This record gives sequence, structure tokens and C-alpha cells, in this order.
Amino acid sequence: MIQLWHFPLSPFCRKVRLALAEKKLEVELIEVPYWERSSEFLRRNAAGKVPILRIDGLTLAESDAICGYLEDTVPTPPLIPSDPAARAEMRRLVGWFDDKFHQEVTRNLVYERIHKKVSRQGYPDGAAIKAGVKAIKFHLDYMGWLLDQRRWLAGPDLTLADFAAAAHLSCLDYSGDVDWSRNEGVRDWYAKIKSRPAFRSILADVVPGFRPTAHYADLDF
Amino acid sequence: MIQLWHFPLSPFCRKVRLALAEKKLEVELIEVPYWERSSEFLRRNAAGKVPILRIDGLTLAESDAICGYLEDTVPTPPLIPSDPAARAEMRRLVGWFDDKFHQEVTRNLVYERIHKKVSRQGYPDGAAIKAGVKAIKFHLDYMGWLLDQRRWLAGPDLTLADFAAAAHLSCLDYSGDVDWSRNEGVRDWYAKIKSRPAFRSILADVVPGFRPTAHYADLDF
Repeated sequence: MIQLWHFPLSPFCRKVRLALAEKKLEVELIEVPYWERSSEFLRRNAAGKVPILRIDGLTLAESDAICGYLEDTVPTPPLIPSDPAARAEMRRLVGWFDDKFHQEVTRNLVYERIHKKVSRQGYPDGAAIKAGVKAIKFHLDYMGWLLDQRRWLAGPDLTLADFAAAAHLSCLDYSGDVDWSRNEGVRDWYAKIKSRPAFRSILADVVPGFRPTAHYADLDF
Repeated sequence: MIQLWHFPLSPFCRKVRLALAEKKLEVELIEVPYWERSSEFLRRNAAGKVPILRIDGLTLAESDAICGYLEDTVPTPPLIPSDPAARAEMRRLVGWFDDKFHQEVTRNLVYERIHKKVSRQGYPDGAAIKAGVKAIKFHLDYMGWLLDQRRWLAGPDLTLADFAAAAHLSCLDYSGDVDWSRNEGVRDWYAKIKSRPAFRSILADVVPGFRPTAHYADLDF
């Protein structure tokens, strides 16, 4: 059985969970309080981060490495385009969400509001939250601009770029930080991705002490 | 002619420069003050980051996307292993350096000491520098531990993981932040990589107002 050490509101873990589910790979989810840095956990990944995937006798870390491995070993359905230019555009967008969006939005909102509290590492920083609330508007507009020209974020097909973006937005939706009325194209895109069977496990996530917003698991939001 | 918009002491740009040179692709380097966020620059990459590569009529952003594109279109010499497990290990290490090492070391030392000053965004933060000086020791030890077991960081062959690591360490060496006496294996590895023709352009870099350490360009350091 494939095993994934994860934290429910980690966008990086959610991206991997979506890729696993889309490729119809069953996985045992093991929730890990990554901030406690237990020696067993650090032995699996010296970087002290989730996700960590146990598969084919290997222990893999870093969401990018894991998603690449899944694509290499289970190519159907493809989540990375085959054309070099299309691959580069997909990777640019994965970088956009996992680096820029993460730093400017997810970290400022989800980590400040939820991870800090759960890991008992202090109180939310008001300035960070304010910056996050401002930044998400620009990002939703940018996504809307992309989706005006494309069916999915990186082009005509669903790719890891969509899963990276949806992983971040679903964490932010849990904490009620997404204004879905801001951009219709983005809302339609999220509705499409949210209704995929691969999304079910994510919509069932619960972090004790933090209820998701009322519409979080609602396919008609 | 291939064009690269870059900043000399950006580890992400250096990784791309090493990959280009290793694949014997000539490139015109265009230095860009990325912090000024000119509209021309933002039109090339809305993320406001370097590197940006103009190649084959395409404008590519994000070092990961660029290196993937180069590997896809110029496969020789290979910088990404062909075996899925080896690829995952390489990607894990690229993530290690470009995320963890960058946050804990490069940002705290090179960005605090040099980027901040060059971009006139304030003065170095003493606490950040202290954290960086402490963290680099752990990272050099970890690299030494890997190199005890392997010829190159990710396995028997030179890969992008070595270029990612060398890109960061070369920026830190410029500012005199690497204690090469700490680990002999790491020093030998860096001497090997530093003597490659691909490294020459990096050793010739100069940032006005900041002289590199005396041994920076010295192959016998």
C-alpha cells in the first residue's frame, strides 16, 4: 500500500493527493504534526517537511519530485504535457503557485490563521494577513486573465498547474479567504476541478478546532 | 541568439547559466535590476523574477521550467537522470537547495548583505545573518554526508542538483560566507565543479561595490 505522510491544510500535500487520486492510486494517509520534527519523521525527510510518499519501496520527498515520479511511473492520465513549450508553461505556473502565490497569499493567510495555532507557534500577524488579503486579489485576476484564453490554467488540458493552484485555493477556501464573486472564470474553473472524484478526499478534510466555511465542500458554491 | 535576463548573484539564474553552458548553448546575458519592476520586465514575466530566457521564439520563466525545457530540447549532455527513482532524488535535492537552503542560508546572507544594498532596500538584518551563518554549517554537513556515499550529490552522475547547490554556494563564496575547511568532501566536490568550463562566466561576475573574496575565482582555493 502506498503511504503519504501529510498535513491536511498543506497545499503541497494536496497537490500530491490530487495527482495520486487522478491516477487512481490508492493511498493510506498518515497525518503528521510536521512542526514537532520527531526523529522518525526527520529520518524519512531530513528537510522536515511534508509531503513524504512511500511507494515502490522508495521514500520520496518534495512535492515536485513526487509528482514527477508518479508521472514517470503511471503515465495515464497524463498530468504533464508532452510538448516542451507546454511543459515549460506548466512548470512556470506550478512555480508561480508553489513559490509566489504561497509566499504572498497562502503563507500569510492559512499559515498565519491555522498552522500557527495548531502548532502552538504564536498568534496570527495582522500585517501578514492584511498583505495576504490584498495579494489574493491580484492572483485571482491573473488566473482570470489566463482562463480567458485557455480552458485550463496551462493550456487546453488539465495539468499539475491546475492541481497546484487548486491545492492552494482549497486551503484558502477552508479558511474562508477566497472571494469567489471576484472572477467568474476562476469560479467556473474551480467548480470544474472541485467536482472531480480526485477532489473528494480533500473536501472531507477537517482540522480540529477549525471548521471549514459553510460552502467548502459544496459543489454548488 | 538565446538571451537570458538575469542578476549576477541570483542562484536561480546561475543554475540556468550552468545548464546552458554545459549544453554548449551560447547566450547573451542581460543584467536586469529586477527590484525596479519595470513594465517591460513585468511583461516578460508577470512574477517579477529572474531568470527569464528567450529561446526558440519563446519567453520562459522560472528556473525549473527553463532547465526542463533545455533538457527536453537539448538532451546532450543529460543533466536529469533517466531512471524515475534517480530523477526523484535529483528533484528532491533541487528542491532542497532552491527552497530550504535558499530560505535558511542564501536569503539570510547574500540577499541581506548584497541584494538589499544594491537594490537600496535597507540595511542587513543582524538576526537574519546570524541565522544564516548557523544554518550553513548544517547544510555543509548534510552535503558532506551525501558526498560520502556518492560521487555527485544525487548519485553517480552530475545533475541539476549539483548545479543548484553550486549556484547557491558560489553566491555565498562571493560574499565570503563559506568555510571550505569544514568538510573536505564538499570542498573537493566544489573544486571539481568550479573547474568545469561551464563555471567560467560565473567566476568572472562582478557586482559593483562588492568585491568577491580573494579566492572566489581561484580554482585552487
